[in-house]
Amino acid sequence: MTTATEQAPDLYPTRTATPVATPRRDPVVWSPPGTSGPISANDLAGYDRDGFLTVDQLLSDEEVARYRRELERLVGDPEVRADDRSVVEPTSRQIRSIFEVHRLSEVFAELVTDPRVLGRARQILGSDVYVHQSRVNIKPGFGASGFYWHSDFETWHAEDGLPRMRTVSVSFALTENFTTNGSLMIMPGSHRTFVGCAGQTPADHYRDSLRRQELGTPAPEDLRTLTDQHGIRLLTGRAGAATVFDCNCMHGSGDNITPHPRSNVFLVFNSVENAPGEPFAAPGRRPGFVAARDFTPVG
Amino acid sequence: MTTATEQAPDLYPTRTATPVATPRRDPVVWSPPGTSGPISANDLAGYDRDGFLTVDQLLSDEEVARYRRELERLVGDPEVRADDRSVVEPTSRQIRSIFEVHRLSEVFAELVTDPRVLGRARQILGSDVYVHQSRVNIKPGFGASGFYWHSDFETWHAEDGLPRMRTVSVSFALTENFTTNGSLMIMPGSHRTFVGCAGQTPADHYRDSLRRQELGTPAPEDLRTLTDQHGIRLLTGRAGAATVFDCNCMHGSGDNITPHPRSNVFLVFNSVENAPGEPFAAPGRRPGFVAARDFTPVG
Repeated sequence: MTTATEQAPDLYPTRTATPVATPRRDPVVWSPPGTSGPISANDLAGYDRDGFLTVDQLLSDEEVARYRRELERLVGDPEVRADDRSVVEPTSRQIRSIFEVHRLSEVFAELVTDPRVLGRARQILGSDVYVHQSRVNIKPGFGASGFYWHSDFETWHAEDGLPRMRTVSVSFALTENFTTNGSLMIMPGSHRTFVGCAGQTPADHYRDSLRRQELGTPAPEDLRTLTDQHGIRLLTGRAGAATVFDCNCMHGSGDNITPHPRSNVFLVFNSVENAPGEPFAAPGRRPGFVAARDFTPVG
Repeated sequence: MTTATEQAPDLYPTRTATPVATPRRDPVVWSPPGTSGPISANDLAGYDRDGFLTVDQLLSDEEVARYRRELERLVGDPEVRADDRSVVEPTSRQIRSIFEVHRLSEVFAELVTDPRVLGRARQILGSDVYVHQSRVNIKPGFGASGFYWHSDFETWHAEDGLPRMRTVSVSFALTENFTTNGSLMIMPGSHRTFVGCAGQTPADHYRDSLRRQELGTPAPEDLRTLTDQHGIRLLTGRAGAATVFDCNCMHGSGDNITPHPRSNVFLVFNSVENAPGEPFAAPGRRPGFVAARDFTPVG
């Protein structure tokens, strides 16, 4: 088991003058074949191939309604708005994200230990897991901006020190995802290549990057190559659906000019055997509400 | 026949302190039933109902290739770039639109008199027609911004003085329109309501509005009402497809972060019986390359 004190070798160089692409050096599914869990063998093979899988109705309508009420409560709470963990949209001044939501809210905390969720995370990562990051994202429509293309692992490796690709995200849709309201786009199969990014990470970069990411996004020619190889999948579906995706999927989303708001809960599980040391390409650690330093296993 | 010198009454008030919605006071299809033309009776009924129709392969692959070459030539021409008729994207400094392209280019001029195009415009408008505006639009991808919701007629009425809704646009796709690259969104049936917009038009407003429209866009609550009533249709399809749409359709497009560029040619035909007088809600006329003052019938 890797501990936080010894620094692992840098298998995935990034934030360099001339970025390079590195083939993935880690498994996608870490549990041995045949390990039991909520994901079927067929779905797990699809996850291994594409880097993601979707669960059409992970949450019931009642659960969705409950989580939406809780989200509204948080967004309307002046204390939450004033909290460092809330990220406010630069133009509209509306709350765009609230981090560490599983600690801020007992209601959202339940999702972390839910066997439908935790079971999938353990099955993919082949070990006990802890929450590296959690948040709710809100795109209110009428022009809310999207997220440019990125691999989450690129940032978590560079700025948080996650050594290996042994991390999985679960995004729960609290609203319907249409083709028109800035839904998630993923390049299936892109998780097999680590695309290094140009640039040097300034101190406290997270303050800007959570609002609008520029550093840590691939060059146009790399995006063109990935698109030619893998295509782009737009993930639509009803509220209550979940997307489970590998930390190194190239993904992004467009803006949302429709009146259909989009909101989701986002949980990131990391293997306890993949605890981060120091950042690989940043002058200092990000705060704990963005990148946890408490590696206590969930459940 | 209305001439340009007598001012028509203002049937569609807009740019007021408190915006109002006005039911459409004009036909959608102006030709008498049974008038011959390239549009089938069925498609014409769909146009009347939805405010638009699509023609899957109006242009052949060879024609698309020829128009794309011509577009590249124009974009690469320093004289064209320096021309007032070229609109440059604020952030990327790339050309976003070139106006009056049917006068700038003999190649694009052919589209105006093409019987497949002109025949459809005449059939809908029930008269001879002239070109009120023409342009090419280029969305190079990698973050090119979209166009917020608007009715073209709102601007053409307020800023150009078009008295009636007797104007039709034809958009020719020169690239494939995917669900992911900022394709056109239309609210089908929205052409039956004129949504007035708040605000007062400043002088030379067109210089800003061609880059990023803010004035002349509906209030969020009006967009919500329209969306609830009509829904939103995302228009995808191969290069060579054309969309024929009424001047009062509520439409817009999201940004394009994909590497798939989008470009189209856009021709606006107005009935010669609907020639504009003075603007209804602007201090002065827009230049002729944005809003023609030569009403010579085409063909």
